[in-house]
Amino acid sequence: MTTIKDRRTIRKFKKEDVSDHLLNNLIETAARAATMGNMQLYSVIITKDEKVKEELAPLHFNQPMIKAPVVLTFCADFNRFTKWCEYRDAAPGYDNFLSFINAMSDTLLFTQNFCTLAEEEGLGTCYLGTTVYNPEEIIRVLNMPKLTFPIATICVGWPDESPNQTDRLPLEGIIHQNTYKDYDEQSLNEIYAHKESLKENKEFVEINKKATLAQVFTDCRYTKKDNEAMSEGMVKALKSQGFL
Amino acid sequence: MTTIKDRRTIRKFKKEDVSDHLLNNLIETAARAATMGNMQLYSVIITKDEKVKEELAPLHFNQPMIKAPVVLTFCADFNRFTKWCEYRDAAPGYDNFLSFINAMSDTLLFTQNFCTLAEEEGLGTCYLGTTVYNPEEIIRVLNMPKLTFPIATICVGWPDESPNQTDRLPLEGIIHQNTYKDYDEQSLNEIYAHKESLKENKEFVEINKKATLAQVFTDCRYTKKDNEAMSEGMVKALKSQGFL
Repeated sequence: MTTIKDRRTIRKFKKEDVSDHLLNNLIETAARAATMGNMQLYSVIITKDEKVKEELAPLHFNQPMIKAPVVLTFCADFNRFTKWCEYRDAAPGYDNFLSFINAMSDTLLFTQNFCTLAEEEGLGTCYLGTTVYNPEEIIRVLNMPKLTFPIATICVGWPDESPNQTDRLPLEGIIHQNTYKDYDEQSLNEIYAHKESLKENKEFVEINKKATLAQVFTDCRYTKKDNEAMSEGMVKALKSQGFL
Repeated sequence: MTTIKDRRTIRKFKKEDVSDHLLNNLIETAARAATMGNMQLYSVIITKDEKVKEELAPLHFNQPMIKAPVVLTFCADFNRFTKWCEYRDAAPGYDNFLSFINAMSDTLLFTQNFCTLAEEEGLGTCYLGTTVYNPEEIIRVLNMPKLTFPIATICVGWPDESPNQTDRLPLEGIIHQNTYKDYDEQSLNEIYAHKESLKENKEFVEINKKATLAQVFTDCRYTKKDNEAMSEGMVKALKSQGFL
């Protein structure tokens, strides 16, 4: 419980390698995660080669974490299962959206298991959400076939920093009893009060010359325009990978 | 590491309740999972009420696990964040497909953390993949607003069985070095040899009167026809929830 309770994202890593032995052990154990019909609808691409990392870097907006000793791209994968079916006189039907959702689910459970196990060994991890921003280019660089899709990139290495833990919403903000109880102004005021009161968030508002913290998100960090453009990119990539 | 290494899905639970104190503690700790821009794009609906469980049961094909003491529906949730933005003079742009993918990712990392923590406490969990088969009906029963979407259902309770661990593909079957190396007949033969050799899988083929294990999947368990119908249902629900 302590590993998860105390976790922080690590963005600075020592140069020291992570051994293949340890890495393989962690990946193998992570695969104990629940998986749809035991199909294991995922693959993980282990990138240690500097040239491949350099090709990936701009696709992740040149975030420095991509220079970590190990970059893992966790992929939804119905390619392996589909090919196996074809060699076994079975007619696979996994070139559709539901199959993508199933494979994405399998992949993320496996990914989170990996992160917990890695952190338990003292490794640091950083989840790059940018993986779904540029899927088509990542697919090209990593030579991914149809019925695969990059879902999560995890940078892994030995920590070279010990950052403070970030805040989380109070429990009442994320749970609902029996059915969903929608939020109103008062409940939102309570749920977001702590976050809005934090010094670093107030500075964030000031630096960005905004009136509220929410505006930093909507106007600077995650804008409607960017989201809509990237949604189109996702749909296009899902089509070209055979899932739509 | 042992908790994850030894895990099994539990489908039979004791009648004994899981205390709110323990459950809340597990959920709160699970929320330490990485989350996109610290937005925590999820909610969890805790269902202990028998009437609500009865309404959910047919939507999960009446699998008996739904009678577990606790049924948790983990939901992608951009509703809370969007409403907060609206009350803070910010113009949210999260009614699109990328935002759904981001929220689904957050939700599954949180879900897997919860499962690991629950299992570490001795609880049993069962992941119901059926959640995305009937999203529209689950949305109705759980009274879920726009910009939320049910992603994973976890049945939780104290184990009343100790099943054998299921098989997994060998590590070589799921990892790739630097870039994706596609599978050929020989590599698939090697990767699937153990699975195909298992007594229970051979019986599975026989009972279903099929020629290969793959045919049990394609013809009985996960058919093209079902997948295509459910893909349509998913797309329809994503539209009505405002994500497409």
